[in-house]
Amino acid sequence: MECQDYALNRTLERDNLNLNPLQRGGFLPLEARKALYEFSDGYSVCDYCAGRLDEVKKPSVAGFLDDMARFLNVDAVRTVHGAREGKYAVMHAICQPGDTILVDGNAHYTTHLAAERNQLNIVEVPSSGHPEYEVQPEGYREVLDELQDRGEEPSLLLLTHVDGDYGNLTDSRAVGKIARQYGIPLLLNCAYSMGRMPIDAKKLKADFVVGSGHKSMAASGPIGVLGIKEEWVDKVLQRSSSHPVKEVEMLGCTSRGAPLTTLMASLPHVIERVGNWDEEVKKTRKFVAMMEEMGGINQIGIKPTKHDLVRFETPIFHRIAENHQRKGFFLYEELKKRNIVGIKRGQTQWFKCSVYGFSTEQVDYIAHSFQKIIKEHPQ
Amino acid sequence: MECQDYALNRTLERDNLNLNPLQRGGFLPLEARKALYEFSDGYSVCDYCAGRLDEVKKPSVAGFLDDMARFLNVDAVRTVHGAREGKYAVMHAICQPGDTILVDGNAHYTTHLAAERNQLNIVEVPSSGHPEYEVQPEGYREVLDELQDRGEEPSLLLLTHVDGDYGNLTDSRAVGKIARQYGIPLLLNCAYSMGRMPIDAKKLKADFVVGSGHKSMAASGPIGVLGIKEEWVDKVLQRSSSHPVKEVEMLGCTSRGAPLTTLMASLPHVIERVGNWDEEVKKTRKFVAMMEEMGGINQIGIKPTKHDLVRFETPIFHRIAENHQRKGFFLYEELKKRNIVGIKRGQTQWFKCSVYGFSTEQVDYIAHSFQKIIKEHPQ
Repeated sequence: MECQDYALNRTLERDNLNLNPLQRGGFLPLEARKALYEFSDGYSVCDYCAGRLDEVKKPSVAGFLDDMARFLNVDAVRTVHGAREGKYAVMHAICQPGDTILVDGNAHYTTHLAAERNQLNIVEVPSSGHPEYEVQPEGYREVLDELQDRGEEPSLLLLTHVDGDYGNLTDSRAVGKIARQYGIPLLLNCAYSMGRMPIDAKKLKADFVVGSGHKSMAASGPIGVLGIKEEWVDKVLQRSSSHPVKEVEMLGCTSRGAPLTTLMASLPHVIERVGNWDEEVKKTRKFVAMMEEMGGINQIGIKPTKHDLVRFETPIFHRIAENHQRKGFFLYEELKKRNIVGIKRGQTQWFKCSVYGFSTEQVDYIAHSFQKIIKEHPQ
Repeated sequence: MECQDYALNRTLERDNLNLNPLQRGGFLPLEARKALYEFSDGYSVCDYCAGRLDEVKKPSVAGFLDDMARFLNVDAVRTVHGAREGKYAVMHAICQPGDTILVDGNAHYTTHLAAERNQLNIVEVPSSGHPEYEVQPEGYREVLDELQDRGEEPSLLLLTHVDGDYGNLTDSRAVGKIARQYGIPLLLNCAYSMGRMPIDAKKLKADFVVGSGHKSMAASGPIGVLGIKEEWVDKVLQRSSSHPVKEVEMLGCTSRGAPLTTLMASLPHVIERVGNWDEEVKKTRKFVAMMEEMGGINQIGIKPTKHDLVRFETPIFHRIAENHQRKGFFLYEELKKRNIVGIKRGQTQWFKCSVYGFSTEQVDYIAHSFQKIIKEHPQ
């Protein structure tokens, strides 16, 4: 049987400046590339497994999980296949089908899917809507009170720490305090924060934190991190009745291979970069200012932004597109000529982007490129 | 914060002859190593995603899944995180908590865990026990009749195509015929067969097949394959009510990264090697004969073996261990001197091994090494 050509190359996206926020936190440092070389084969982390992935000593998965627990200030850590799988596992372990959970209005679609797969009802704490889409911690209290009036008690609160649409950072500590008052656990989705900015689960008053290795922790996908507070460890990591060393929600083991070793190899790099978070935010704010100065470009979401993911409304590019022979494709093509990628083909009314990890010179070059495109295309 | 040393190297296992059956089907061919280089970064397969992983065209995940469906003769294919996650998804989609499922006595522990996580009751179709541990297809009929007498109707039959303890190959077609007679779907666990030997799901009369990329399909872990027969596609791949393009059991997308691209890159290699399966079995039988000729070494499981995974009882090594100053460690250490790894440290009463993919010369060298160890250690 003949196979099709799967076009298994990524030169364009690797060799150019990639503005896709989904990609910026997932670039591998050298140490992770070396780990990938060592552990590329199948079950490579399982040579010395005595039945528990989290206890493997060579490579030291056990040591890594200890370090990760300290890094996040949680009582137990497991790797999962991604943030979504972490959310699913927590919901599955602590909720019953038919239960209600509260989620913020900026929640990622995978939060909805994890709840749907668990047959949970979702009640939303709405955001403030256009243009800031801010989630107010007090909104949780309001919705909880409404539910209480109806005699309903949610079994879980979920907060998207930083959302993937607007890059809004929400005050987890404030939501966590409300959660404690009502005696309901809080699951914090840190897919866009863990690995970019400091996460201290106890300060953030989260019972559970989930993170994404491929999104924000410089690891090969798919891998996620699940951090658990002491009181929930036994429930979420319950052992099998038939195979007493195996954890049921993990189906025994989770990430048995290359993604795990890249996450391990990247941890020192991630710890270091998290220390530079304030600089990253400053750089992003400067980038936003440069973009907005051009006119016809407006950042939406909380201002000034507190994260590297920014969403712009760009009426100026939309006007250019209307008169351009390449229509909406012009922006993608003009950027590509300048070695910039990561803005979706055809998109001109708005886009999301990130300059996370770029040097000041690169950020200047990117902003100037947008400026030149505007100048070269009078509306 | 300082990290521990995670010992992220695997020189010993990569540079030596590795007999671990878990590892033999997971070595990457050159094309897969190239793909890993291209797609090592985080969300690397998602550059051109329009919302569905299985429809991504660059790299051509869509084309790959078409090819895989033809290769397995199934109506729909999805990648999952591993065989266990595939089994869990099928059970979750088609069974209800409290349901009963039938599984063979040689089932992998992850079958039990997938059922337990789904709150299903397991009824076992026992194997014949020592020394062959054979699962008789008619055993399914007997157990089904017993259950029917008690008014119980299982919602799923699960068969381990080739088990990981004895390498026993069981006649799926015969079990599938029984399944059809009773109107119950059959899930075939092909973790040790798909990618090593030809799998034709329709001939094997399986409604679902699951395979393991890291175990038997020359891919980086973790990744699995789930093949589905037409009549179950809508149920297992049901779309979300809130996000209509997303599949609930997949939590939207599954393997978003490096393992997927290695599985894709390896498919032509896997298709080719599956064509040589008869040679692999012949080679294994010759190896078993050479081992048994030494005396004090007996293959258990079905004889002659129909798979590369073989389990030996090795009273001779156990006797040597008793008098050896290094006790049970001597075998591991003697093999290591001869550049052979993959037999667990300390194990001498029995072991599992595989010579899958080794050349005739390498197999001879391995058998002769065991022979020399026996000669050099008179009991």
